[in-house]
Amino acid sequence: MFKFLFLLAILILSSDAAVQDFCVADLKAPESPSGYSCKSVTNVTVDDFVFSGLSAAGNTASIIKAAVTPAFAAQFPGVNGLGLSAARLDLAAGGVIPFHTHPGASEILLVVQGSITAGFVSSANSVYLKTLKKGDLMVFPQGLLHFQVSDAGYTSVGYVFFSSSNPGLQILDFALFANDLPTKLVGATTFLDEATIKKLKGVLGGTN
Amino acid sequence: MFKFLFLLAILILSSDAAVQDFCVADLKAPESPSGYSCKSVTNVTVDDFVFSGLSAAGNTASIIKAAVTPAFAAQFPGVNGLGLSAARLDLAAGGVIPFHTHPGASEILLVVQGSITAGFVSSANSVYLKTLKKGDLMVFPQGLLHFQVSDAGYTSVGYVFFSSSNPGLQILDFALFANDLPTKLVGATTFLDEATIKKLKGVLGGTN
Amino acid sequence: MFKFLFLLAILILSSDAAVQDFCVADLKAPESPSGYSCKSVTNVTVDDFVFSGLSAAGNTASIIKAAVTPAFAAQFPGVNGLGLSAARLDLAAGGVIPFHTHPGASEILLVVQGSITAGFVSSANSVYLKTLKKGDLMVFPQGLLHFQVSDAGYTSVGYVFFSSSNPGLQILDFALFANDLPTKLVGATTFLDEATIKKLKGVLGGTN
Amino acid sequence: MFKFLFLLAILILSSDAAVQDFCVADLKAPESPSGYSCKSVTNVTVDDFVFSGLSAAGNTASIIKAAVTPAFAAQFPGVNGLGLSAARLDLAAGGVIPFHTHPGASEILLVVQGSITAGFVSSANSVYLKTLKKGDLMVFPQGLLHFQVSDAGYTSVGYVFFSSSNPGLQILDFALFANDLPTKLVGATTFLDEATIKKLKGVLGGTN
Amino acid sequence: MFKFLFLLAILILSSDAAVQDFCVADLKAPESPSGYSCKSVTNVTVDDFVFSGLSAAGNTASIIKAAVTPAFAAQFPGVNGLGLSAARLDLAAGGVIPFHTHPGASEILLVVQGSITAGFVSSANSVYLKTLKKGDLMVFPQGLLHFQVSDAGYTSVGYVFFSSSNPGLQILDFALFANDLPTKLVGATTFLDEATIKKLKGVLGGTN
Amino acid sequence: MFKFLFLLAILILSSDAAVQDFCVADLKAPESPSGYSCKSVTNVTVDDFVFSGLSAAGNTASIIKAAVTPAFAAQFPGVNGLGLSAARLDLAAGGVIPFHTHPGASEILLVVQGSITAGFVSSANSVYLKTLKKGDLMVFPQGLLHFQVSDAGYTSVGYVFFSSSNPGLQILDFALFANDLPTKLVGATTFLDEATIKKLKGVLGGTN
Repeated sequence: MFKFLFLLAILILSSDAAVQDFCVADLKAPESPSGYSCKSVTNVTVDDFVFSGLSAAGNTASIIKAAVTPAFAAQFPGVNGLGLSAARLDLAAGGVIPFHTHPGASEILLVVQGSITAGFVSSANSVYLKTLKKGDLMVFPQGLLHFQVSDAGYTSVGYVFFSSSNPGLQILDFALFANDLPTKLVGATTFLDEATIKKLKGVLGGTN
Repeated sequence: MFKFLFLLAILILSSDAAVQDFCVADLKAPESPSGYSCKSVTNVTVDDFVFSGLSAAGNTASIIKAAVTPAFAAQFPGVNGLGLSAARLDLAAGGVIPFHTHPGASEILLVVQGSITAGFVSSANSVYLKTLKKGDLMVFPQGLLHFQVSDAGYTSVGYVFFSSSNPGLQILDFALFANDLPTKLVGATTFLDEATIKKLKGVLGGTN
Repeated sequence: MFKFLFLLAILILSSDAAVQDFCVADLKAPESPSGYSCKSVTNVTVDDFVFSGLSAAGNTASIIKAAVTPAFAAQFPGVNGLGLSAARLDLAAGGVIPFHTHPGASEILLVVQGSITAGFVSSANSVYLKTLKKGDLMVFPQGLLHFQVSDAGYTSVGYVFFSSSNPGLQILDFALFANDLPTKLVGATTFLDEATIKKLKGVLGGTN
Repeated sequence: MFKFLFLLAILILSSDAAVQDFCVADLKAPESPSGYSCKSVTNVTVDDFVFSGLSAAGNTASIIKAAVTPAFAAQFPGVNGLGLSAARLDLAAGGVIPFHTHPGASEILLVVQGSITAGFVSSANSVYLKTLKKGDLMVFPQGLLHFQVSDAGYTSVGYVFFSSSNPGLQILDFALFANDLPTKLVGATTFLDEATIKKLKGVLGGTN
Repeated sequence: MFKFLFLLAILILSSDAAVQDFCVADLKAPESPSGYSCKSVTNVTVDDFVFSGLSAAGNTASIIKAAVTPAFAAQFPGVNGLGLSAARLDLAAGGVIPFHTHPGASEILLVVQGSITAGFVSSANSVYLKTLKKGDLMVFPQGLLHFQVSDAGYTSVGYVFFSSSNPGLQILDFALFANDLPTKLVGATTFLDEATIKKLKGVLGGTN
Repeated sequence: MFKFLFLLAILILSSDAAVQDFCVADLKAPESPSGYSCKSVTNVTVDDFVFSGLSAAGNTASIIKAAVTPAFAAQFPGVNGLGLSAARLDLAAGGVIPFHTHPGASEILLVVQGSITAGFVSSANSVYLKTLKKGDLMVFPQGLLHFQVSDAGYTSVGYVFFSSSNPGLQILDFALFANDLPTKLVGATTFLDEATIKKLKGVLGGTN
């Protein structure tokens, strides 16, 4: 009887079965300005909220000797709409994450191995530059150009966290040199000379 | 002629037929982090903006001698996306709305009948406790644990309003004891003894 | 010993004494776009979160036979920054809350006594009109013109709740006729004739 | 080899193909409280971000001698979700954009030709009125009643920009007189006399 | 008597004197994450909401043959907290607004004279490029690299509007070359050669 | 000459010296609902954006064998207003971060050492429970009850990141038992028996 009455209370208090505390991304349904559509709660499991894709090192065997592995909503559907996402940075000795921005989010970097020199530039063109050790945090305000370079003789590892589940990532060199923006326009809008532009377009696969 | 020209003006000025001042929930269409999809304006009537489901008393014939009746977006589609929703509280003499939180909203309580003692606890563990009379308002900041208990010898009634159309409702005892979270884990994370946990799991239908 | 260790845990876990779960308005300190400055937590008491100013009826002995009593952040400092506020509507028989808008918030009306006919008009000029009984809710989307009129032979009472702690209140007749906006301009921008404007300016204390 | 390695870097760094920096409106897919669904990036072209519909003058051959041409998300899909939209104002000599509000946005007016007298009224019923010349800007805070009237003997042109991709537009006279809101209710809620209301309903096509 | 009663109504309805529909910046008071502190309403005049500083052409007698004149909250206090601001672009023949970002806002460009070729690059490195004529609008999504170049044999003029009262402005060349970021680090993070960097640092006043 | 002209361009383009891309907390100035007041940019250095306080292990010599070390805006002023903050979790063998919520933020946990079993409970009382290894991420949606317990025979370390610079932290046991909330009220609102409550109040320093 006691139990029966209490269960009745549950029914009354929990009748709002449609309440969603989260919105796990359904990557195949329509996307809105606020993010992906929500997967039905019925199909949500704890695995939607867990992501193991950052536990393995990224491949640093490239010219930048570094890798960025994202855990944005597209990779980690559980963060959709929650205002957070992550990525892993691997920097071999001499590795560089070149100048880039996240158009839609601020970022916190946590160094978990090695040493990383990181910097950002403000709208007033001031440089904020620091060499970080294991356990240090550094915050990069939204939309500002920043970079990370290895400061150790061995691989450094960092994790970065963003204030959006879809922060975006615009890498400066790729934006300038890895597409069909005409060399002349790149020159006019960056003050770089044509030879420099053509060389980098060549390396990065750009045309025009 | 006068009328003709003015009607022309209407056409020019009102040509943006797609403008929506609201987004009445279509509960069958995709949900996004910002709420339910919008019903076509063509099908919207005033009844979407009116909700009579809180005019009748909730059933207080349960062990808590109380009932919570929600008017969130799932019940009251007109509030979808407007940053507001409501619920009705009925507390018979001795009734209790046990400790709970709304993960996504702040709340204002209005007492319309009887007397209710309400309280919340802050992150600093301070208690804010007050006995409210008819016509009093009390605000409960977002996400904090709070409760309401009857302070009258007869039924008290309150209405609560939330700063979200989907505030969520997490009832502490149900979160702890009405599911399959293992007794041992509940004990480790609450410092309650096993006997207490098992008793409450029994009452609330929890397992493990 | 047991207690000592646990208290240590408290110190470690609660060291962030500066955390504020709320921002009770300090009406004398600077105001920002997000609301009033916060009163020091040390000085906050439960009375900051409770407001009794809506428990008494407003004075309906005016030509509109109605009164609006606000509980915005300026009157009810505990709601500051929490995205909620309230007001009380008293409508004597024949009472009218004339056409008005809240520039910064959506609104939910709860009828607690009598009967109220309420309506709003959308951007598409559609009218959403309903006569509400005790216990009914109606939502008015942000920024749209709306009104409430008594539908009972005795005093009706409603409480309204807003999706902002500072919703604003622009009463149409006062905006048009209770200031120094030149009669000619009022005429040109409303298509009302000069005699009508001058009469209402006279009643409402407008000039020019 | 150099190129190969660098391209590898591109693959690693750009693997998040699903990132959207924008959400061009797909007007046929579901709409959410945050805006229209996003068109697939694959189908997005620069023309989605460009709008030429404001380059031609609106038709001012109406009784208000003025026209408003919107470039909201419904007309200009590229602005969807970006918190911005626009419109063009044409005012022939004597032209008037009558009192109106935008329920969901603040507005900046730029005068590009002629001279325009613009004003808004605050919640405190204060009038902010100014005659603007070419090149002047004026800002109208969200949701407040405002108007623009020609101040030149020839056509004046302005462009307005909104803090939302879907600002809404509620024209006072149309809200009051261009629908089926009963004359008696309009009278009770505006204090206008019945003859005035019926006349304007006649002109604007209202009934009841 | 009629007037007396109505004035009483005004008092009752307008008692909330502290309501602010806007927050005109007090540039000397504390700034918060949401913007500048608000000037007292008593001291606000229409001139706070009007800005004439964009009516005169910027000085294009520089190497870029162009000028950007801002009307952000710091210059135009009335926009503070309203989610909007503006700037004027002057481009002499051959003028260039070099690659830049606004870290905190999307932008709409309106061409009012001449012809401007504008472009932006997405996170996916796609180029969106268009030559705009007088009256055309183009939107640049938040935080993405973009530029504008003259496409006319005479001065072109554009006005840009932002979705924030404080959008920020980071000009690529100045961020890279007009400060003390060491040449070696610039090289490592941009893949530009040292000679190029040193030359641009020389021109732009950078050191190290 | 070339340099002179370019510097002129800098002056024109950078004249908006007041632009802030960030708002480093001035902990002594007024706080608003959006966060702390901003420190003058002149006084900001890179050290405001770097935090080393999480590089050392927290003291786990307490009954919970665990420690939480926060890096919220109060400790790490550079994150103020940026929508992000962090904390470090140390769990000795058998350590437990007991049930708690963050009223104002979602959270991502990164395990950097050992193994941690973490779980949260939804509004629907569903349990999402997982044992995480080094490098795994788990997200906890805003405001929901969650916990972390050691799953290794040695110390496990995690870092957590929040979607707010001031997420709050409400630890269930402290909210219930570490203050002066009367035992009778705790009992009525939790269904715990008086002996259990008194025992835990004794351990945690609660009274009444």
